Formats: sequence, C-alpha cells, structure tokens
Amino acid sequence: MAEKKKIGILGASGYTGAELVRLLLRHPRVQIELLTADRRAGQAMGDVFPQFAPYDLPRLVTIESVDWATAGLDLVFCALPHATTQTVLKDVLTKAPATKVVDLSADFRLQDPAAYAKWYGHEHHALELQKEAVYGLVEMYRRDIRKARLVANPGCYTTCAQLPLIPLLKAKAIKSDEIVIDAKSGVTGAGRSPREDILFSEVSEGFHAYGVGHHRHMAELDQEFSKAAGKEVVVSFTPHLVPMNRGIFSTIYVRGRRDKNAQELYAILSRQYEKEPFVYVLPFGRMPQSRHVRGSNMTFIGVANDRQPGRAIIISTLDNLTKGASGQAVQNMNAMLGFAETTGIDQPAMFP
Amino acid sequence: MAEKKKIGILGASGYTGAELVRLLLRHPRVQIELLTADRRAGQAMGDVFPQFAPYDLPRLVTIESVDWATAGLDLVFCALPHATTQTVLKDVLTKAPATKVVDLSADFRLQDPAAYAKWYGHEHHALELQKEAVYGLVEMYRRDIRKARLVANPGCYTTCAQLPLIPLLKAKAIKSDEIVIDAKSGVTGAGRSPREDILFSEVSEGFHAYGVGHHRHMAELDQEFSKAAGKEVVVSFTPHLVPMNRGIFSTIYVRGRRDKNAQELYAILSRQYEKEPFVYVLPFGRMPQSRHVRGSNMTFIGVANDRQPGRAIIISTLDNLTKGASGQAVQNMNAMLGFAETTGIDQPAMFP
Amino acid sequence: MAEKKKIGILGASGYTGAELVRLLLRHPRVQIELLTADRRAGQAMGDVFPQFAPYDLPRLVTIESVDWATAGLDLVFCALPHATTQTVLKDVLTKAPATKVVDLSADFRLQDPAAYAKWYGHEHHALELQKEAVYGLVEMYRRDIRKARLVANPGCYTTCAQLPLIPLLKAKAIKSDEIVIDAKSGVTGAGRSPREDILFSEVSEGFHAYGVGHHRHMAELDQEFSKAAGKEVVVSFTPHLVPMNRGIFSTIYVRGRRDKNAQELYAILSRQYEKEPFVYVLPFGRMPQSRHVRGSNMTFIGVANDRQPGRAIIISTLDNLTKGASGQAVQNMNAMLGFAETTGIDQPAMFP
Amino acid sequence: MAEKKKIGILGASGYTGAELVRLLLRHPRVQIELLTADRRAGQAMGDVFPQFAPYDLPRLVTIESVDWATAGLDLVFCALPHATTQTVLKDVLTKAPATKVVDLSADFRLQDPAAYAKWYGHEHHALELQKEAVYGLVEMYRRDIRKARLVANPGCYTTCAQLPLIPLLKAKAIKSDEIVIDAKSGVTGAGRSPREDILFSEVSEGFHAYGVGHHRHMAELDQEFSKAAGKEVVVSFTPHLVPMNRGIFSTIYVRGRRDKNAQELYAILSRQYEKEPFVYVLPFGRMPQSRHVRGSNMTFIGVANDRQPGRAIIISTLDNLTKGASGQAVQNMNAMLGFAETTGIDQPAMFP
Repeated sequence: MAEKKKIGILGASGYTGAELVRLLLRHPRVQIELLTADRRAGQAMGDVFPQFAPYDLPRLVTIESVDWATAGLDLVFCALPHATTQTVLKDVLTKAPATKVVDLSADFRLQDPAAYAKWYGHEHHALELQKEAVYGLVEMYRRDIRKARLVANPGCYTTCAQLPLIPLLKAKAIKSDEIVIDAKSGVTGAGRSPREDILFSEVSEGFHAYGVGHHRHMAELDQEFSKAAGKEVVVSFTPHLVPMNRGIFSTIYVRGRRDKNAQELYAILSRQYEKEPFVYVLPFGRMPQSRHVRGSNMTFIGVANDRQPGRAIIISTLDNLTKGASGQAVQNMNAMLGFAETTGIDQPAMFP
Repeated sequence: MAEKKKIGILGASGYTGAELVRLLLRHPRVQIELLTADRRAGQAMGDVFPQFAPYDLPRLVTIESVDWATAGLDLVFCALPHATTQTVLKDVLTKAPATKVVDLSADFRLQDPAAYAKWYGHEHHALELQKEAVYGLVEMYRRDIRKARLVANPGCYTTCAQLPLIPLLKAKAIKSDEIVIDAKSGVTGAGRSPREDILFSEVSEGFHAYGVGHHRHMAELDQEFSKAAGKEVVVSFTPHLVPMNRGIFSTIYVRGRRDKNAQELYAILSRQYEKEPFVYVLPFGRMPQSRHVRGSNMTFIGVANDRQPGRAIIISTLDNLTKGASGQAVQNMNAMLGFAETTGIDQPAMFP
Repeated sequence: MAEKKKIGILGASGYTGAELVRLLLRHPRVQIELLTADRRAGQAMGDVFPQFAPYDLPRLVTIESVDWATAGLDLVFCALPHATTQTVLKDVLTKAPATKVVDLSADFRLQDPAAYAKWYGHEHHALELQKEAVYGLVEMYRRDIRKARLVANPGCYTTCAQLPLIPLLKAKAIKSDEIVIDAKSGVTGAGRSPREDILFSEVSEGFHAYGVGHHRHMAELDQEFSKAAGKEVVVSFTPHLVPMNRGIFSTIYVRGRRDKNAQELYAILSRQYEKEPFVYVLPFGRMPQSRHVRGSNMTFIGVANDRQPGRAIIISTLDNLTKGASGQAVQNMNAMLGFAETTGIDQPAMFP
Repeated sequence: MAEKKKIGILGASGYTGAELVRLLLRHPRVQIELLTADRRAGQAMGDVFPQFAPYDLPRLVTIESVDWATAGLDLVFCALPHATTQTVLKDVLTKAPATKVVDLSADFRLQDPAAYAKWYGHEHHALELQKEAVYGLVEMYRRDIRKARLVANPGCYTTCAQLPLIPLLKAKAIKSDEIVIDAKSGVTGAGRSPREDILFSEVSEGFHAYGVGHHRHMAELDQEFSKAAGKEVVVSFTPHLVPMNRGIFSTIYVRGRRDKNAQELYAILSRQYEKEPFVYVLPFGRMPQSRHVRGSNMTFIGVANDRQPGRAIIISTLDNLTKGASGQAVQNMNAMLGFAETTGIDQPAMFP
C-alpha cells in the first residue's frame, strides 16, 4: 500500500476539528500528524474530546510552535475562527508552499475582494490567496478542486441550499426573485464557545429564528446563485435553531418559470445527481428527514407539488458537521490528493 | 362569591384533556364535575396523568354512562376524535339543550357543508349543529362567541397563522397569492395514541416536514383567509415536527401590496392587538421564541424586513396545548359564561 | 382585601429569579417592587426573560443603587451567587432591619461556623446572621420559620433527599451507614452563566455523573441527617446530569434496621406526609416520574421492595426550580408573612 | 482478497437490525444476503429505514419464505422477539446445520433450564440448542465463542454491569451482598414497537425508573455474577429511562472486602482490560460520559473513592445498540468466523 499522506488540523478543539479526527482516524490513506489548539496546547486530544482517549494521536500544540518549513505536511485542514485564518494561512503557505489547504472558515469563500470588504467591513488580509482559492462545492467545481492548492470549504447552510437550487437556476427553470429558503440548523452549528444563547436550558424545548433579514451566509449564497443564474439573485433566507445536535434542513419554496411544474424540477435534479455518491434525490413527492443523514456525508433532497399552482416545495437536508463541514472537507482532500472521492467518508448515517 | 359553574370534559385521557384539567383546577369560577375516557373508564385521573393524583377529581367514566338530561352541566369541553364528536355532541345537545359546548376537534370548524364534505369525504353527521356552531377565534369573533351555545375551537396551526395574517388580509395590505407559511410544531400536537412515527427515538435529534402539499388544516385556513380577504386565498403551508413537547412556530413570508413595507404591516398588527390580553406584538425587528409562551395562553408576534425588497417576514408563536387548544377553549368558555376573559388563564409562561 | 406586601428579588436575571417572578406575578398577596441584576441593570425584565415582556414589572437596577432604609420592602428574596450573598444581606439587614429575607444561596444553610469554614475554606462573613438564620425546610421547621427574619432556603438535591430520609432516620428505621443516594438533576440546576459543559451539544443525547465523591451539597446533608439520626451520618451521594431542563430525581437505597421492611418504611413516610400539601407519597410499590411534578411545588415519593432481602428502594422527585428553589422560597415567604402556605404555589404540574 | 462471507439478518426492521446493517455495510469481509421482516416483507430496507435508501441491499422477506437448506448463509444474526426466536432458530439449525448464529434476544442467555423456566414461566422450546449456546460476552468467553455455532449475545444492561464487576467478583475484592447498580438507559433500548410510554412527549423533559425490584435482566446478571463469585450473588439493580436515544450508564456502588480500597479495585480492572480493544479504563478518579461512546463499540469504565469509608463508585457506560447489542454481535461474528476481532467495528464514537 502507498505511504500515508501526512495531515494537520489547525483548531482541533472545536466540533469541526473533532469531526475531522473521527473521519480521518479510519481513513486508509492518511495519518494525522499535527493537531493544534492554542488554549488547550499541551493536553491530549482525549482531554478535550474524551471519545478519542483510547486512540493514538499527537498532543495538542500551539500554531506558533509549528515549524511549517520542516513539518512535511501534505495537507492541512484549517478550522480556525474568522480573520485569524487569513493571517495563519498566509504564513503556512509562504513557509510551506507545497502543502495543500482545505479551509473550513468563511474567509476564502468570497471571490470578489469588494464583496468581501463590504460584508466583513475590512479588506482581505491575504488578497493573493483569496484570488487563488477554489470554492469547494465538489459537485460543482470538482475539476478545479483537483488542481487546487487552497480550497474554501463551503458553509453548511449554503451547501444545503446550493445543491438543490444551482441546477435549477442554471437551467433557468425557476423564478429567481421568488425563492424562499426557510432553513433550520442543529446547535453544533453555533460552535463550542460558551454563550448564554446556546446553553442547554436556553435551547431545549423550544424553537426560534435568528439573524432574521441579515445573516452573513447570504454573501456566499448571493455569489453562487448569481453565478448560476447569470444575473443578480437575492433570496429570502431565514435561519432557525432546532433543539438537536446535528443537521441542516432547508424547506425551499420556488415558482417555476414558463410553467415548469414540480415534476419537471424534479427531473432536472434527479438527472443531475444520478451518479453523485453524496447526493440522493428521493422519489418524487417523498421528503427526507435530517436524522437519516446524521453522521454521514449524504445530502438528501425531495421535491413535491405546492398547493399554490405553479409552485414547488423542495427539501434538502445534510449533517452540518459532515457534508456541511468536515465530511465535505475530507471529500475535497480526497479530490486534491487524488484518492477515490468516497474514501473514508462512505459510512451510512447513524439512526437512531 | 357566585356559585361555581359545573363543567364536563369529554375525552380527558388525551393531552388536551390534561391541559384543560390543569387550567380548570385553579379556575376560580368553575368546578370539574365530569371526566370521560372510554378506554380508561373506572380509573382515577391520577392513573392516567399521575400529576393529578394529589387532587380531588371525579373518576373517569364512559360517555355512554352519562345521563345528560340530569347531569346539570353548564358547559362541556369536547376533546374527542374526529367524527365521534359529531354523533356525541348531537346526543348531548338534544338531551341537554341548555348545556354549552366548546368543541376542540375539527368537526365544527368548517361552516360550509360542501367544504366539509369535500375535505372529509362524507356529509356532516350533525348538519344543524354545523350551522349553529361559531368559530372560536376569540380575537376575531368575540361578540358571536358570547352568545353561542356551540363553539368550534380553532386548530393550533391555524390560530398561529390567522392571528398575524387576518388583519393584514382584511386591510388588503399583502398579496394574497404569495403567502408562504413555514410552520413548525411540537410533538404533543400529534396526540397520545401510540404510533411509530412519534416514538421518542424517531423524533428526537432530527427534524422533518410532513403532509407536504396536502395537510388537512388547509380547509380551515382557506375558509378564514378567504373570508378576510373577500376573495379566494390559497396559501403555501408546510408543517414540520420539532423535537420538543409544546409550541407552534410559524415563519411567514409575505409581499406587501401597493408598496406596503414591513413597517406598515407592523403598524397594522400593533394597532390591532394593542388591547388584546393574549396577543403580544414585539417591537419591530425583534422575533419571538416558542419557549417564551410555553404553558401560557399568549401568542407572540414579530415583524421584520425581508432581504427581498417589498417583502416582510412575520413570526408568530404560541403553545399548541394552551392558546392552540385548551387555553383558547377556556378563553371561549370565559366569554360564553360571562366571566372576565383572562380568568384562570393569565399565568405567565414557564421558561426555562 | 388586605394591602399587598412589597417584595424585592436580588439577582433576578438567573433561572431562580425568573421562577420567582413567574410565581409571584400571580400571587394574590404580594407585589414585586424591586428587581436587581447588576450586569443587566437598566434593562426591562422582558429583555432578559422575554416571557415577561407583556407584564408590568419594575426595571432591573443594581444592588448598589438601592436605598434599603427607604425602600420599604416587606421581604427580599436573595438569589445571588455564593459569598456575595453574605455581604449584601449584612448590608440589607443592617439598613432595613425590619425586612425579612429568604436566601436561596447556600450561604446560610450551615449552622456550625466551623463546618462552614471547613467546606468553604474561609470564615463566614456574616457570623451573626449565620446564627440567626433558620433552615427553611418547611415540612421540618415550620414553627421556627414562621418567626424567622432570615431563612436559608434548602438546596434542590438536599430537599429531595431529606424529605424521604429524615423521617426514617428520626424513627431509627434504617441503617445510617448504608444509605446510597443516586441523584439526577435537570440542567437548569447549573444556572445560566455560560460554561462549555452545559452547552446544548455537550449535554443533549448523553448522561454523566459529576463531582463524584466530593460534592458540596454534602455539607448540608451531613448536617441535617446527623441531626435527625442523633449521630454522625455520612451517605453515598452521586449527582448526575439529565438532558432535561427541570427536575431532581433521587433513587435511594436503604437497609432497614431490626428487620424493618419496605412496607414499614412506607408506613412511616405515608403517615408523616398525610397532611402536607406539597409532599405526596404514592401507593406502595409505585414510583414517581420527574415530569409529573414539573413546574409545581410538589415532591412525589415512592417506596418499593429491593431484590436484596432487608433493603428498600425509595424514589423522590421534585422540580429543582420550584420545590427545589423558588417554590419553596415562596412557601417560606408564605409562612413568614402569615399567609396560607399554599398561596400562589398550588398550581398543578405541567405535563406534557 | 478472500471471498466475502454471506450474512442474514432476521428481524431487520427493528433498531438492532438497522444497527447491524449500518455496521455490516462497511465490513470488508461480509456481504448481507438476506433481510427478513415479516410485517414489512416486500419493502425495501430504505422504506423502513430511509438512511439505507442509497445502498444496494436485498429486499425484506418473510422468514417463512426462506429456504434455509439452499440459502448458503455462513452466519445469521437473529434479532427476533422473545420466544419466536427459539422456534425459528431450531428450524434454521435443523435445516442448515453448518450456518452459525448470533442471537440478540434473551432466549439463549440462561444456561440452566430450570432458571429459564422460572423466569419465563415455561420450559425452553429448544432445550438442545440451549445446552449448545455459548454466552457471548467476548471479553470473558472468547475461546468458547471462537468454536461456537450458536452464540447468545448478552443484554445491554448486563454487558455494562458485567464488564466492571466480574473481574472484581472473581478476585473476591468486593462484598457480594452490598452491590448496588443504578442503571440508566437511552430510549432505543425499548425497541421500535409503538407504546404510549415511549412516545416523545412521555419521555422527553423527564426522568423515571421502571420495573423497580423485578426486572428480567436480573436472571442473566444472577447467573454470571454467581458464576464469577463462586456463590449466589443477588444485586440491587434499578433501571431508569433517560431522554436520549443511545446509551447505558451504570453507577455502581461497592464495598471492598478485607479493606480493599478504590485504588486497588481500579488496579484490578486496569490490568484486566489493558489489552482489550473495546474496554477502556479511565485514569483513576475520572468518570466517563455516555456520549463519548455513542455509536462505537467501546465500554468506558471509571473508578473513584466513595465518601463512605471502605466503599468505591464505579461507572461503566456503553452504547446499547452497539456494544450493548449489534456491535457486540459483530464482535462475536468476527470471533466465530476467524476475522480480527475489531474488523468493521473500530470506528470512533460520534460526539457531538
């Protein structure tokens, strides 16, 4: 068997870090060589996530302590907070230009420097890299990703919305100014940093929307939807919090163009994803549940008639930590390192 | 103090029955005299709902065993399943015509016999009573309810959607063919009868839609919305199940007519509900959470700008067992028996 | 009707503060006049707990800003953190010596200054008050409480364990060195301050013990159990966290003395609590569930035979925010102000 | 690579059936050839468990329709209800005597015909097979299992209690008449058949014990503990239900014999499991959480001092569907078919 590729994970003490470790520990072609977590440096991964205590893993170190030039890493996953990411990756890729990077933050998803500056309120700190970065929605940009050095892993909400909508926008099958995306997320999407609003007793036994009308994920959606439609697209998008750990679930309301009905929209999606290993389109009229993709890298999509003539309802669901983050990151890695795309991420969902 | 009114509850072993008992046990003007539950007849209420074991309540009996003519009940709540309800209430009101009734089923909500036949596949079994029944959305039909003998308590989903939308439709402030209601419900809405799809392990840690495109609550919404708008209204409506016990949460997407913006829609709702004890409109741009109405008879409503120009997002939430069922039923009872409308149902929500 | 008593709540932004407001808003004999919350001062209670937005309540102020001498409060509930409490209450009772106090912290529960110093690592900051304080387990110390100025409201775990065990220890019916208390708590018991270990995603879908072998509640249990038994009693006690908001549930394993069997233990408890409004002993062999006391001030107790000859299993459950904190605090207030003990806290549990 | 072994699963529509499919779909040495589910016969596995819709699996058939003699199965997992199991397996092993069987029911766990008759109220229907069956706790009976044709997979509660206690009983390190096992289970342990008491709204937001004093798992524990201790052992055991899907968590209270303290008990367990791939003993004084073994085949064990002198607290946790059922069944299969014991079941836990 070929030698294993050497992998690093920056920011291993968060949930996406833990999910990367879960998936990579059993990936047959790679070896985890580096785990960083600034505040937990010196500790074992099993101190931060006890499920890993029985496994042999490198101790957590600070990013500062890493000598990139000699580290010899083939690929680095970056799960750091916004902004820090830009500085760190500039440093990594300067000192170790042959290392490949999958970045899980939002920092390299926007391709237009002006758009970045508008949404984030400052100029990008690594403009050259921003230009180089490839948007990592594998089902759409597979060819570019295979050749990329730096891939910007898409967001969880946006992956879930793009997979059903992009083919329809490209086919000009739906009206682009009547798209409503009512999105729901599990709580791990909010991360592991303590905040009152994600305490158990604030989240359980209830439901709410947040960031109504001004959610940051919008920028990424605007970019990709407009590209697909060939004109500016602005959608209605409302994120909600569900008292569950994992899952993104999007209920999408669309109106067909030129009398396209739900069946015809279904046919487009069905054809598009026939051979994709990680997108499954249910039989027409059947709708997926988030729990049936839990822990897997799958996206399940359903299409049905709406009661309103001329409209259809599309439901799309995935696991925010897997296909919505770390699973898709490994899928990107597989493409970048020339492995079969499903390697290490083909386990079925865990339900119940 | 005036003598207490005598109350009966038909179908006391379900969740709406338990919620009625919870509210009525501390209602200062009434006394529970009769509790029926056919399959649990002979048992104490505390055997069926142990929280009531310490309280003095009549034993459960079968409906058959009740002698309506001599029972002397002032008002009966009917929480029986669909269809049974019609036969039972015909019998009750024939033998005890002075008794008042609040029916919690859907059986008397449709006022048009043809609509009933179309949605339920058979003619109504109590056509005279159907004609007599008053639709019990107190905030809209208070005057009629005060004089009614038979009130049809609205459904939980429909109450939650009507309170924000009816004033806007009446004011012709929104386009009636672009209304999208993305509704979410807690699991108690599905009742207490064992079914695989509402087992704990099927519902927890996940999210899903059900009945997409053909939900029965539609009939009631169509009726009331069309009445309010003065023309036929058909809305998009998708119900979802949230892993929580109580709560209805509706995210409603609307487009203003004649350039009405979100602020103007807000003003209409704000004015409408200023003096209503059970509807609270939050400051503009703030959105409610279902947990903050849990166990109370309140509906909380929020209005915000949508990203799409010309559109607004409205969120409405209530507790499906309280304002969405038994609390509203007691509110109806209070109106029918001449009590202050808030009597016995003015406790604040229980959060956390 | 008599004039309403004036009430203050110190520390109103935590869960026990919210529970006090929930209960007192509908208490017929009192009026909330003061709410403090240092970090939220200036805000409305409805900003901190949106369920109270529709109600008329005083704005939150800092403790510092209160002029105790002129505030004219009849009774103050103190829901402040450990240590702060001692300083604040010394100040309050010096400046307003006629004000009564129910303290919900652990600061005044230990009566022996040495025991306090041992468990908390420093001398008590208000030794005079420590001497004056009455332990507020109403079912045991009702007479003293009626005359008290300062009552130390018992902890939730300890209330749940004392109610079943103290009568048995007093009757010398069980072996005091073989008591095992396996206790489980809902997450609200951990408070509202952000901490990683009580985030939703850390708590849901799992179960764990904490503080095994060295939990601080021990001191209070040791004190009261030893007093009841007339000799030093040290019990095994393990607290666990349940993914639920409210509830304490204690499974208690005991061995009878002198061949006392489970039935005889049951008889002692049954007799003891026959007339207590807030303790309900189930029929022998039936066991309570935490959900059936949720939101009420009840404690439910069950007794059954163990498989091991000579041993019995006792289960005791209450709502940690109600009987385990704020409900019991109101019960204490009722006793101290001469109201009927059940006033304002007699609502049945909310299940489901 | 060697040819894959042919596997059948009887009773594939329950949770343990789904968990077997999840694990076997990615097991490199076996192929699922047969899935039975009497009531769902004719349907695809993806109709019963939608997470499997994208995978290629045999359709569900009735047991009756299988021709065992020609089926050519190497091994059959039997996940049928109690009693049915005995009749079916007698038939299978008569017609296909070379097929191996791992039975997940309780039917073959008791080795003494008299004990079986006492606990189940009737004579065993397959006495010869009962004699032949090997008890499948791999860590204890590995050698016998490797040669066995019929293995009785242990129960989830009992696996969780035996792994920590059997080494201590064998070493005569604890008093056998003072063992208290306070056990907690996730809801999947109750199966998928609709019952009121496991509906979401009956289970969420609460905690309770069940079967206090007379739980059937006792028989299996009595058998194995008595065998280990060399004398009759009867333990206190109370099962509880936790509002979570997966997990068994046992808090075990023991008293050391001849002054054995907690550290010495720890040393025994630590030594015993040093090389076991699926049992991990935490550092002394640290306690495991059920969520950290979720979806994995691991058992985590912690030992700490009790406050009561001479006593220790041991906590043991596993996933009831994996190590407590289907994972352990695959572990047994691996041993019986000569595969490395960890094949296909070595994935880390999924947390969060």
